[in-house]
Amino acid sequence: MRIARFSIDGNVAFGAVEGDQPDQLVLDIIKGIPFADFELSGTKVPLSKVRLLPPVLPSKVVAFGRNYAEHARELGNEVPEAPFAFFKPSTSVTGPGDPVPYPSFTQELHHEAELAVVIGRMCREVPRERVKDVIFGYTCANDITARDAQRREKQWARAKGFDGSCPLGPWVETGIDLERAGDLTVQLTVNGEQRQLGRTSEMIHPIADLIVNISEAMTLLPGDVILTGTPAGVGPLSVGDDVAVTIEGIGTLTNKVVQRG
Amino acid sequence: MRIARFSIDGNVAFGAVEGDQPDQLVLDIIKGIPFADFELSGTKVPLSKVRLLPPVLPSKVVAFGRNYAEHARELGNEVPEAPFAFFKPSTSVTGPGDPVPYPSFTQELHHEAELAVVIGRMCREVPRERVKDVIFGYTCANDITARDAQRREKQWARAKGFDGSCPLGPWVETGIDLERAGDLTVQLTVNGEQRQLGRTSEMIHPIADLIVNISEAMTLLPGDVILTGTPAGVGPLSVGDDVAVTIEGIGTLTNKVVQRG
Repeated sequence: MRIARFSIDGNVAFGAVEGDQPDQLVLDIIKGIPFADFELSGTKVPLSKVRLLPPVLPSKVVAFGRNYAEHARELGNEVPEAPFAFFKPSTSVTGPGDPVPYPSFTQELHHEAELAVVIGRMCREVPRERVKDVIFGYTCANDITARDAQRREKQWARAKGFDGSCPLGPWVETGIDLERAGDLTVQLTVNGEQRQLGRTSEMIHPIADLIVNISEAMTLLPGDVILTGTPAGVGPLSVGDDVAVTIEGIGTLTNKVVQRG
Repeated sequence: MRIARFSIDGNVAFGAVEGDQPDQLVLDIIKGIPFADFELSGTKVPLSKVRLLPPVLPSKVVAFGRNYAEHARELGNEVPEAPFAFFKPSTSVTGPGDPVPYPSFTQELHHEAELAVVIGRMCREVPRERVKDVIFGYTCANDITARDAQRREKQWARAKGFDGSCPLGPWVETGIDLERAGDLTVQLTVNGEQRQLGRTSEMIHPIADLIVNISEAMTLLPGDVILTGTPAGVGPLSVGDDVAVTIEGIGTLTNKVVQRG
């Protein structure tokens, strides 16, 4: 099931996305919240009539660095032996179709397409065999990075945590199991031209390892998001660019880079 | 004014702390929320009858690294030219008197006493002359760190973001102005023995610079917390230790390190 979050006439709701034709999708409004028991209301609205929002409101986004060997090398970095993680704050999250303002403190904004794992239940010290039980679903993410600030600043709060640096969407796909999530195509285009192409099977540390690693240290809450690293092909974004992340079996997340207002 | 957050009979409230004798403090319960207009209710409860909670629930804690030269050197690091920041997530925040469980993934837990700035209003791109207007007050923090994990892992999400790694409290002091906040004694004891002693005047980048720096990149929300770095003298904590951060004009934040349950 594809679960979207949206606003219509000033109200925010979750809905199940129905249909196959991109321009004819319909939302069946959800009663309750998707992380607990919920029902479909049967009340349907065309997706074209709503504004999609980030599909979840994470308390934290935990992002893993250099989890694809070819990407680590393209930036001249060694492939890390153990996974390492950084945070993107809730204020960095933005939705599908939302503009991404080019920050004032960088001259080198980069895209990074990533598979995002959405956590479904509060958990800590998750054993490997229980990882599948704490995952709610998957969505597309763009770990937008101020590459120059990332080089200058030893920790990446500004370089990867600025407002708009974490587009998520267009919805959460709950029908992909952990095994299949480990073998999906991840693609990114800028103005329709392909820049990144990889498969989640190329991850150095697979999804289960990442969740074991981070939950060993901290509690994950429903709606928290784990970013799993980006494949090779990262590169610059300019004001006016349309950047689109497409993940097999999930959908496409598109955002436009705009001048800061 | 000292503003505490506490629970009594299962209810959570804010209160103004009255009195000077540590064992005779009284809370005057606040009507409304302290970030907006509020009144004192006149209903008073002895502080000894309540459980103090973290004085705020930050959406994010932004912590600056190596902001005291002597501390940077004691760990063999260079003094950074520009400020750099990392995040501690909301799940790391714990209150005065709360136990800090020794994490399973470290053998080298360290204390770091820090002055914490509590943000009072939503803000972004704060000009230097407006910094004083966005500060709600100040509290004590302990930026507890898994030093071995910090050395091993390039980014510090686990090393400084684990559950319990961010004790805050005992309350927010709103009566200190920005100038005075820049010249306070910060002290830390372990089992009553002094381990850290510094003055906020030793900060390489003063409070105003830190807030200009981070708000250039991201929106700060009411209740968000800025940690301003730790003076020299960091060192190990063991299970059973009582660790106490005292900041002049604010109060003392005490926590006990316990075995993970």
